[in-house]
Amino acid sequence: MSRAPVASFVEIRRALAEFPVADETARAEAAERDATLTKPPGSLGRLEQLAQWLAAWQGRHPPKLDRPRVAVFAGSHGVARRGVSAYPPEVTAQMVQNFVNGGAAINQLCIIADAELRVYEMAIEDPTEDFTERPAMDEASCARAIAYGMMAVEPGIDLLCVGEMGIGNTTAGAALSATLFGGNGAEWAGPGTGVAGAALARKVAVIDAGLARHRGQIADPLNALRCFGGQEMAAIVGAIIAARMAHVPVLLDGFVSTASAAVLHALAPGALDHCEVAHLSREPGHRRLVAALGKRPLLEFDMHLGEASGAALAIPLLRAAIACHTGMATFAEAGVSGPT
Amino acid sequence: MSRAPVASFVEIRRALAEFPVADETARAEAAERDATLTKPPGSLGRLEQLAQWLAAWQGRHPPKLDRPRVAVFAGSHGVARRGVSAYPPEVTAQMVQNFVNGGAAINQLCIIADAELRVYEMAIEDPTEDFTERPAMDEASCARAIAYGMMAVEPGIDLLCVGEMGIGNTTAGAALSATLFGGNGAEWAGPGTGVAGAALARKVAVIDAGLARHRGQIADPLNALRCFGGQEMAAIVGAIIAARMAHVPVLLDGFVSTASAAVLHALAPGALDHCEVAHLSREPGHRRLVAALGKRPLLEFDMHLGEASGAALAIPLLRAAIACHTGMATFAEAGVSGPT
Repeated sequence: MSRAPVASFVEIRRALAEFPVADETARAEAAERDATLTKPPGSLGRLEQLAQWLAAWQGRHPPKLDRPRVAVFAGSHGVARRGVSAYPPEVTAQMVQNFVNGGAAINQLCIIADAELRVYEMAIEDPTEDFTERPAMDEASCARAIAYGMMAVEPGIDLLCVGEMGIGNTTAGAALSATLFGGNGAEWAGPGTGVAGAALARKVAVIDAGLARHRGQIADPLNALRCFGGQEMAAIVGAIIAARMAHVPVLLDGFVSTASAAVLHALAPGALDHCEVAHLSREPGHRRLVAALGKRPLLEFDMHLGEASGAALAIPLLRAAIACHTGMATFAEAGVSGPT
Repeated sequence: MSRAPVASFVEIRRALAEFPVADETARAEAAERDATLTKPPGSLGRLEQLAQWLAAWQGRHPPKLDRPRVAVFAGSHGVARRGVSAYPPEVTAQMVQNFVNGGAAINQLCIIADAELRVYEMAIEDPTEDFTERPAMDEASCARAIAYGMMAVEPGIDLLCVGEMGIGNTTAGAALSATLFGGNGAEWAGPGTGVAGAALARKVAVIDAGLARHRGQIADPLNALRCFGGQEMAAIVGAIIAARMAHVPVLLDGFVSTASAAVLHALAPGALDHCEVAHLSREPGHRRLVAALGKRPLLEFDMHLGEASGAALAIPLLRAAIACHTGMATFAEAGVSGPT
């Protein structure tokens, strides 16, 4: 299912219509066991909810985390030539090499999380079109990128963390967010890698120019993705779809990942119910995005790096949730008195 | 130093006066390396700050986490007989047995964190006095409990997480907090293990009765600890003192741990600079406490269990901070271009 060829937006819409729902039996079994464990009810807070969420979306009780995967998609943006980033466009390819060599933050975070890292290069030598001039992608290449992203979900993985690398992609993410949720460049643009002053004003102007150019064609969220998105953003959409089909819960990373995921939310309510937002990015638009999605991030660590760094950082929290859920003694087993 | 005998409050005050300050050289070395790593400046947010904090308080660069210890102190409260908890007083001893048998939440969390768990029983068969009638402890037994807590800091440990178990101790923590920061029972009492309605009203009344009884003697924070505190709370004070002397950074857990630590803050500004608050507890007084201490918790997970559970949950975040700080490539090493 996760490797189904997707050649057009029609097939993507069909996949959404077939999205499996949560396994409420598994969720109820988790809640039932939780109530027997040696602690006051509710006292593990979000850890309890995460154990139930993992059970519901893995479709099994107890849930397991034997093979979490971190997928980082990298793409090049035509709009990066417009000076919207603090770094030059070639940093995208250089950072992919850094991932391969094990020198980036995400490499270290995957070691701590005991997670498998996969880096997916999305035609880095062939940037998308500059969205101030024309749509970043045509439908075929956008659908192909979505299909490519689906391949990140291989049999056996039981958690997927999605992240990205792409100089210029907070500009694309801001334009996409404005399209999906309203607002303009000034409301959605942030420092990204660290722009301020005149460079930030340029970024805002680029976003507004893109919004003006594509105003007529972006009522459909997939078209909005095509007009503004990088290929790595389309791939994230595909990975989230494939994860849902394969009963793999998802941790979203920061602003760009969440903006990409929001395309699915805009297409179908509940399409992101198998996803948690791992952390609240310092990129200011992220707070607005997660509010619009009705999500509560697991961490607020002032990070704004991308690379799935916030998602990988949250994996040990899920491991802790499962460890407590499966490893704790019940009141009966431990001979501990219940409430008076 | 960590094993120095402490027989009186005078000696504790002397220890505070000798508190080592942060190693600003180690902190600066960490900041300097951080600026060279392959990421935009500041983009790892709190992870960067934690690496620098660990360097400053371990007094070395790079910082390490080879041997984190989780210390759970358990004590019995005379005031528990007054029906201030959802659970009977004997649960304290039963939960200690559960810790020993590996069945509690903290056991599972220490496995995930790869941390050493030590449980310290503080005369559980011999509860403190009911603080509505007389001071919970005399000075000698309070000082003895502080000295006992100091022993949790053994040579070689490089992080200390402090937590507690003690039916009735959110009542003691609320009374202590009201003494240190002002306010009454209604402002500081919360559900604890899960009291509400008439039981919560009883808890509030017990706190107010204690505050009224000891009003004359609690201007000194150590006296306030003696009047209200459980032995496990005094031990936490001792552990935090010993950690400071031994250059061991500390993660505080929830409401009761933080209320205990606040005694040191009230005695000397900066006395908790080597401590981070690991999580914001759902116990409502905790938010007020951390604000009074000027701390920002690492996690907000709606937990309210105690047992050092929130502190242990945060250990992987510190591991991640150190892994990024020490393992990442520099721009020069990776051949990645810097900002334009």
